[in-house]
Amino acid sequence: MSKNQLPDPNRDFPAWYIEVVKRAGMAEHSLAKGTMVAKPYGYGMWERVQRALDDRFKLTGHENLYFPLFFPESLLSKEAEHVEGFSPELAIITHGGGVELEEPLVVRPTSEALIWSTYANWIQSYRDLPLLYNQWGNVVRWELRTRLFLRTSEFLWQEGHTAHATAEEAHREALQMLEVYKEVAEEVLAIPVIAGRKSESEKFAGAATTFTIEGLMRDGRALQCGTSHFLGQNFAKAYDVTFLGSDGERRHVWGTSWGASWRLIGGVVMTHGDERGLRIPPKIAPVQVVIIPIYRSDEERSAVLEVAHKIRDSLTGQGLRVRVDDRDHHRPGFKFSEWELKGVPVRIEIGPKDVAAHQVVLVRRAGGAKEQVATSAAVDGMAGELERAQQDLYDDALEYRNAHTHTASTYDELRDGITATGGLWVGPWCGRGTCEERVTADTKATIRTLPLTPEDPGAPCAVCGQKGAETATWARAY
Amino acid sequence: MSKNQLPDPNRDFPAWYIEVVKRAGMAEHSLAKGTMVAKPYGYGMWERVQRALDDRFKLTGHENLYFPLFFPESLLSKEAEHVEGFSPELAIITHGGGVELEEPLVVRPTSEALIWSTYANWIQSYRDLPLLYNQWGNVVRWELRTRLFLRTSEFLWQEGHTAHATAEEAHREALQMLEVYKEVAEEVLAIPVIAGRKSESEKFAGAATTFTIEGLMRDGRALQCGTSHFLGQNFAKAYDVTFLGSDGERRHVWGTSWGASWRLIGGVVMTHGDERGLRIPPKIAPVQVVIIPIYRSDEERSAVLEVAHKIRDSLTGQGLRVRVDDRDHHRPGFKFSEWELKGVPVRIEIGPKDVAAHQVVLVRRAGGAKEQVATSAAVDGMAGELERAQQDLYDDALEYRNAHTHTASTYDELRDGITATGGLWVGPWCGRGTCEERVTADTKATIRTLPLTPEDPGAPCAVCGQKGAETATWARAY
Repeated sequence: MSKNQLPDPNRDFPAWYIEVVKRAGMAEHSLAKGTMVAKPYGYGMWERVQRALDDRFKLTGHENLYFPLFFPESLLSKEAEHVEGFSPELAIITHGGGVELEEPLVVRPTSEALIWSTYANWIQSYRDLPLLYNQWGNVVRWELRTRLFLRTSEFLWQEGHTAHATAEEAHREALQMLEVYKEVAEEVLAIPVIAGRKSESEKFAGAATTFTIEGLMRDGRALQCGTSHFLGQNFAKAYDVTFLGSDGERRHVWGTSWGASWRLIGGVVMTHGDERGLRIPPKIAPVQVVIIPIYRSDEERSAVLEVAHKIRDSLTGQGLRVRVDDRDHHRPGFKFSEWELKGVPVRIEIGPKDVAAHQVVLVRRAGGAKEQVATSAAVDGMAGELERAQQDLYDDALEYRNAHTHTASTYDELRDGITATGGLWVGPWCGRGTCEERVTADTKATIRTLPLTPEDPGAPCAVCGQKGAETATWARAY
Repeated sequence: MSKNQLPDPNRDFPAWYIEVVKRAGMAEHSLAKGTMVAKPYGYGMWERVQRALDDRFKLTGHENLYFPLFFPESLLSKEAEHVEGFSPELAIITHGGGVELEEPLVVRPTSEALIWSTYANWIQSYRDLPLLYNQWGNVVRWELRTRLFLRTSEFLWQEGHTAHATAEEAHREALQMLEVYKEVAEEVLAIPVIAGRKSESEKFAGAATTFTIEGLMRDGRALQCGTSHFLGQNFAKAYDVTFLGSDGERRHVWGTSWGASWRLIGGVVMTHGDERGLRIPPKIAPVQVVIIPIYRSDEERSAVLEVAHKIRDSLTGQGLRVRVDDRDHHRPGFKFSEWELKGVPVRIEIGPKDVAAHQVVLVRRAGGAKEQVATSAAVDGMAGELERAQQDLYDDALEYRNAHTHTASTYDELRDGITATGGLWVGPWCGRGTCEERVTADTKATIRTLPLTPEDPGAPCAVCGQKGAETATWARAY
């Protein structure tokens, strides 16, 4: 492998991933173990994901607020499952302002504990419900094995926390937010996802039910892209959050929480990338169109750049994000490779002959097709071009997922299939943890999703052969 | 004072401030000492401030990125002034993932140390410059005396960090960002500010020069609303950040950093509030227009609400933020007071007679004028109404500042004036720290601003009577 060549994603996907993320200028490791710097090119994608999610949160009636980064350690222990789930991952502040604290503070791994203890003061009567709040921020979960964007000690995310008068309303909310995540994953990130339910062993510590969206990455592993939890009354009971109903009865409220993080950016890389690097969906691409001027003399340079700037101005006037790469110390070929690595959806090349002929060369990152187009047509057609590029990435990913989704009705099929080919394996399951554990022990795969509402598969469990309770989708996962 | 009456801001401004912030639903204290919850009404203002700043950062060529929340404690000590300034305020993480860390981690009080140590890897040659980056996030500076939004252990802010090839360029950048802050303070928050330079004793720990914008609050105290630092080569030398110039010479780079926080929201409260509560500039108001239906019978209710909803839809169609307060369990008088407390710029009242006469009652929070207006005129004129409300707040605040800006040429005038009346006191200063310290010891006032470029005041120092070096503006401050 030459210095400039990327690792082959088909041979060493993890090495390819980290090289792409670093070379594209998306992120790099930072000094403290497990931390990373999100660089402008990666952060720029995250900003657009944030906007897409936030717009939809607001359309569905939610408001943003902000709870503190740290809270007393003792607060966490009120919900038994919750503390058990998060204790091993906590970062603890023991000193502040030069003195040892009386009670250590926990850096939030998630904010249910603090938020529900506060909701206890905010909720008195049915008139105070529902509370539909979301928070954008950072959380910390200690990690030793780090992967840029996918697994870091500190990560950026949003966490929604809602409180409702009835179980039905909370359940509906949890499913509504799952649908929001699915829409953003598919329509904005071009990642086809399966919306489903988690098994007991995979659910969020403290939830009654966890819903999830799962994508399939190019190495055959699944990625959890967002989760939405129906909390039941677990946190309301742990933190004594009650309301007086219109009937005069006092009851515990019902809750949901839902989160999506910058791991979605890692999902974009692993869903769409290829041997030449990133392929970024236009809707989140920091640069949607790059214009590469080609010239030898100063005279050619100024003629070509004049047209390049005119095209840029027309396109930015349409609200598109355009860059003219006028660096003199790199040759066009170098620039082509660099912008391909960076996954810019459309490249425009202009040389002196193109200027004379009022045309440009248009190169699509997804399709790879290279075409001479009249300049005016390139400008007028660019919005449509980008829409097609967005759709092409989605179609590609869907085709990949379809080709890597298999069914298994016996244990041999399931175990050998997962081990040999990866991908998603769908089969009937009896619902018992012992069968779930057996598959994980043998293949490292876990149940990624169960149907949103359980349905009799009409076939015996693929693991134990006893009566099937529902249909599980198995895969190795990030 | 009755339970529902606000403290009188002219008698007890701090008590008034905290009551307004809490009752308006802007913020409250949280569990860990010094922390606060920014509630939706307060956070909603902050979101709009963020957007106003971020748009301008991008227009001036900056990109966002994100550095980690924590870094090794030893990193801080490389810049001597910097570590001395921030050490007393640090929060320290000593345990992570259940084990004691080999080296404790510092929760960032600001990110210069981490960012400059990273810039050392990002900058090789003049072609890598300038770096024009900004970060949105939280920082922690241990505080024992907390004031909601103004002084909290954790606060939300942005911090820009730029690197340049020349001192001139860095200096220009620092002044450009100061101008951005001034524009947002004045045009978006309606807070008139003085842009100036800090004295040596008031500058940022590690800066060569600190620039500031300062507003004057309604209690006669100044509030620092944003600072922009010309770092010189201090951090570049501490973290060995050099670049190879186009002439083949290796030099240290020049830096700036600049930050503004949610304390601006506190500034809005203290600049515009009055005895009835908040007065929010329309550009950041979560609710710009509130519609209060007035009715007795169910029949009246439905007739009035029908018109109320039509008006709301017309106004939201113009991009305005409108709320219909249709709560049945509160009387109109209660709602009037509540929305006045919450500082909504315009209130529309509609009763059955108004419906019949195709008119509404329009009440301006700033002017207080109450007027019957044809419904169509109210709808068509609302955008202009809000523009005027924005301007009125600014004009009011400017008038207050002008009335509370005084000049002093002798020490008796300066000392007695600050003590007796507060406000801004402008006078010649010799430039010596001893005179600065004397004023502070006698009056608790500090130098808030010096001119951007020093100019001979042509008069002796108001403190010591020796030759004046420049003109200082003194005030007690938050």
